[in-house]
Amino acid sequence: MKTPIYLDYNATTPVAPEVVDAIRPFLVEHFGNPSSSHVYGLVARQAVAEARASVAELIHAKQGEIVFTGSATEANNLALLGVARALGQTKRHLVVSAIEHPAVMQPAQHLREMGWDLTVVAVDGYGRVDPHAVAAAVRPDTGLVSIMHANNEVGTIQSIAEIARLVKPMGVLLHTDAAQSAGKVELDVDALGVDLLTLAGHKFYATKGVGALYVRTGTPITPILFGADQEHGLRPGTENVPLVVGMGAAARLAREHLPAATEKLRALRDALHERLAAAVPGLVLNGHPTERLPNTLHVSFPGISGRELLYRVAGRVAASVGSACHSEADAVSGVLIKPLAIRLGEQTTLAKSLVMAAMGCDADRARGAVRLSMGWVTTLEEIEAAATAISEGVTDLLVRRR
Amino acid sequence: MKTPIYLDYNATTPVAPEVVDAIRPFLVEHFGNPSSSHVYGLVARQAVAEARASVAELIHAKQGEIVFTGSATEANNLALLGVARALGQTKRHLVVSAIEHPAVMQPAQHLREMGWDLTVVAVDGYGRVDPHAVAAAVRPDTGLVSIMHANNEVGTIQSIAEIARLVKPMGVLLHTDAAQSAGKVELDVDALGVDLLTLAGHKFYATKGVGALYVRTGTPITPILFGADQEHGLRPGTENVPLVVGMGAAARLAREHLPAATEKLRALRDALHERLAAAVPGLVLNGHPTERLPNTLHVSFPGISGRELLYRVAGRVAASVGSACHSEADAVSGVLIKPLAIRLGEQTTLAKSLVMAAMGCDADRARGAVRLSMGWVTTLEEIEAAATAISEGVTDLLVRRR
Repeated sequence: MKTPIYLDYNATTPVAPEVVDAIRPFLVEHFGNPSSSHVYGLVARQAVAEARASVAELIHAKQGEIVFTGSATEANNLALLGVARALGQTKRHLVVSAIEHPAVMQPAQHLREMGWDLTVVAVDGYGRVDPHAVAAAVRPDTGLVSIMHANNEVGTIQSIAEIARLVKPMGVLLHTDAAQSAGKVELDVDALGVDLLTLAGHKFYATKGVGALYVRTGTPITPILFGADQEHGLRPGTENVPLVVGMGAAARLAREHLPAATEKLRALRDALHERLAAAVPGLVLNGHPTERLPNTLHVSFPGISGRELLYRVAGRVAASVGSACHSEADAVSGVLIKPLAIRLGEQTTLAKSLVMAAMGCDADRARGAVRLSMGWVTTLEEIEAAATAISEGVTDLLVRRR
Repeated sequence: MKTPIYLDYNATTPVAPEVVDAIRPFLVEHFGNPSSSHVYGLVARQAVAEARASVAELIHAKQGEIVFTGSATEANNLALLGVARALGQTKRHLVVSAIEHPAVMQPAQHLREMGWDLTVVAVDGYGRVDPHAVAAAVRPDTGLVSIMHANNEVGTIQSIAEIARLVKPMGVLLHTDAAQSAGKVELDVDALGVDLLTLAGHKFYATKGVGALYVRTGTPITPILFGADQEHGLRPGTENVPLVVGMGAAARLAREHLPAATEKLRALRDALHERLAAAVPGLVLNGHPTERLPNTLHVSFPGISGRELLYRVAGRVAASVGSACHSEADAVSGVLIKPLAIRLGEQTTLAKSLVMAAMGCDADRARGAVRLSMGWVTTLEEIEAAATAISEGVTDLLVRRR
């Protein structure tokens, strides 16, 4: 059976062959525990150190500033809950954007239950937060600002550097969830001006099961899991040597691929957009027209359900409706956003789907949304075939309706 | 260069070839995100479900009772902190043994900082807790009892079933850290009578970076990391599909290998013990003579340092001093036990090394300790060569001293 064209790279990427090659020896001959004093341990220890250096280099950080975790979700939890624990009773106010991933929004909600105050900054119709609105939300008791770098659904990229320029002088810590950015756009922790940054292995051709948190030297943070002293004492448990090594290899690849990959992805994305726009009158682009991930095309098909469309073309194209702009009639797919009761105010919103509320989509646009995300190995032939399949699917659904 | 004979299977095992074979397709063609609705997601979802069933079967649990985590450390944290959160303010007393792994002892210490009361039950000279002492420690406000199944250092196995028989009628939850037991001895959650049980992939021929927590149906527990709703809502983050599949394959292997593997390991262990005892007058066995992991030989060499001995034979044998019975002069190796200030009383101990204090070893016995742990692929030839190497190392050290 022919497998459908994969256009869901924002959900997860395949593992690059170079990464598989890097992992294999650490499944077989180099199986030692990095904590062991003998040669088996030494080899594992050195491999983890090299991977740490490689991931650090990808984001222009120092080796000692990288903490490997089991996922980006865990890295986000460590950033929010670990900083909160370290700050203690002095700073108990957190600022996030309205379109954070549940892996930020849920720890934020947990902190609220623990007595923290939470401000959720709204986004505009393109899914962008206004850096000045973020700065306006900062108070004397603000401990941490956490604004995602690129949105997983619509792909909109935030002005983190501008946010940093405004809020860092106010004495707050700044975290950004860059799980969707690494390997797609250049990342530089100094240019971004962040104290903490989250990476996800399986979003840039490493594997699921490994993530990392960048922690700028001097940032107050404590572990959130407790045990032995691995990862500079910040994340206990025997190191996941094979997948950490894989993430190091993926970071090397990403450095080599960028910025050429960015250009290639942008061209493919725009080619798909043009073909769909030509075939489907009234097609609406979601997310920012330019400040957007080069691989992400999030569009709404007028008058049909994105979910039904994907079901109809399932044999030819594999993509996602995302959880963005979903309507009440269409259940949340992929990422689950739990109902979040947050303090209502000028800069806050209460919604089942934060992204839907935040971007102010109407019901039809919400219902018709589909996320098409491309990867390094996506070809123009795949894009053309996908555009044909989706256009035919749209026609079929509209015809069937009459 | 010839690699030394590996006798440190309690630190970590190599990955079984069958496990590597099971993992590979999930690094390459089956790379989907289990949360995706399309066929790539479906394949990943089914693979995780099969792995869950396989791990459940290993310990005679139901599929829905297995929560995959990033490590046994995380599973232990989830057991202790997740149950503590679920119990809220009603039950705020925890009972552990004096020889728990840091992945239990440190979360226990964290709970103490959060206002829980902690009782540490002493062990005898063999490293065994008296089930009646555990029962005596239970109070009306006791929420959880956590006693490890097999000690990672000396290998002593606790009478968990007997502890369950005594404490379960008192209305407490019972957790056991079985990270060192799976694949070495039969495990049955009903026979053990536990509510929660921890497994570590890399201790039974799966990989580092994956663990699991058995949670008996109906056990009050909440997540300790926050995000989307994976793992029955108990552990957020995209599933680590390849390593979870690997752990499923390892569980199948363990079922096939047991109980023959137990018998083989015991014979190798006792052969090594006999050879060393014959060559080294005054050799002392640590841990229980019979109620002990079949693969673990923890012995003290009189008059020499275990660390120096391992250093001397490093080219021929790779083993560990463990953190058991270490002296002040020899730094803690492998597992780090942080200083733990606990409530002193009849059933508690205050010590830098809990195992040393608990087993009442004198300084010489502590200094001379070495842990030799065997695995499925260990051969009698390796045992004979290791015994020769170690005996020669002991002689060299004693001669040099004169």
